This record gives sequence, C-alpha cells and structure tokens, in this order.
Amino acid sequence: MKKVNIGEELASLEEYWSQKIIGKANGQLFKVAKGIGEVNWHKHDDQDELFILYKGHLTIRLRTENIELFAGDMFVVPKGIEHSPVAEEDVEFLIVGLDITSTEAGGKPAWSRTPNG
Amino acid sequence: MKKVNIGEELASLEEYWSQKIIGKANGQLFKVAKGIGEVNWHKHDDQDELFILYKGHLTIRLRTENIELFAGDMFVVPKGIEHSPVAEEDVEFLIVGLDITSTEAGGKPAWSRTPNG
Repeated sequence: MKKVNIGEELASLEEYWSQKIIGKANGQLFKVAKGIGEVNWHKHDDQDELFILYKGHLTIRLRTENIELFAGDMFVVPKGIEHSPVAEEDVEFLIVGLDITSTEAGGKPAWSRTPNG
Repeated sequence: MKKVNIGEELASLEEYWSQKIIGKANGQLFKVAKGIGEVNWHKHDDQDELFILYKGHLTIRLRTENIELFAGDMFVVPKGIEHSPVAEEDVEFLIVGLDITSTEAGGKPAWSRTPNG
C-alpha cells in the first residue's frame, strides 16, 4: 500500500487531455489530467464524472449554463448530461469515474490524440 | 448543478472526526472532515476508504506500517484492513467511500461523539 502525491502526479503529465490513473477505490478510478483549449461536446451515459480543480480556470460548458471552476472547486457532471470543458490556459485537475474517459467518445479533441487514442 | 469549494467546506467544519458530504458520484460520497488526536482501531469490511490530505500531517497507522500523509497526498485504505488515523495537530482531509464512516464502528473516538453519533 503506497500513498501518491497529487501535485507530483500532475507535474508528471506530458499529454493534454490524457488521464493517468493514480488510485482506485470501490470501483472508481482517480485520475489526473491537464488540459488546454476545448474538449468536444459529449456525454457519458454510464457514469457521473467528478472534477476537482488543482490549477487554472476550467469552464465546464453545459447546455443550460457554464460552470466556472478554479483551484479547490469540485463539480459533478451527472451521467447523460452533455458537456464541453474549455480552458484558455493550462489547467490541472483530478477526475473521478468508472473508467478512462479521455477518448474520442469522451470528447478528446483530435489534435490531442495519440495513435493509441 | 452546483460546484462546491473544498477549502470553504473544510473551513465550515465545527466538529472533529465528523464527516460532511459535499458531493456524490457513482454511488460514492465525497466528504470533508477535520481531525486531531487518535481514531480508534477499526476496519470497513464493505468498502475501501480513500483519503486526500488538505492540511497538516496525518499518520494512518496500519498493523504492518505507518503511512505519513501531508497536503496533496492521497491514500486508499483497502476494505478489511485495520487502521487508526492519528494527528498531533489539526488536519483537514477529503474522504471518499460508500457512506459516512465517522461512527463508533468507524473508529470515531468517544470524546468526539455527539448524542447523534
């Protein structure tokens, strides 16, 4: 059993909009990611997606409103709700859910995709 | 749908070793708590318990080793594993699991219990 440091894990990220699993509990994955620019509109029919901001300013656009997140803020995108995260400058965050959602179906922009997804 | 700020929620806590739910996702509760002193040895047979430290120094004593947590550290106590958190000074943390575990069965020390638990 080992601890991890969220700041160190965030600092180790090289790719934007790619999620790195740093912990698992009760079937949930705890993942760190960094982002810039826009994620395509998408939704997850099978899971809620929880964000905790660590650095920067992330706007989570919903069809009904924009949620403005800053360091220390937590927000849950309920399953089935369309959303599109946008960041004008670098943002770093923790994301919790059932699996890796930084995929094409998960809204990952084409410019950030590697050959593996 | 509303965001919450983890720092503000931590600052609002009045009782030690009492958990306040600030979010729910995929059946998991995201709770804030503060602590000082020792939590009694206990285990959770039905759930993993995940900690993220926000302030101070928390030692999670296990039967096999001590895990020393500081701000930004994350640690999962797997289900069924006996543990006893200890803090010499005030600590603040986020805890994730299936339900409120700050109960007598959850190791909550007698001095911190209110008439309701």
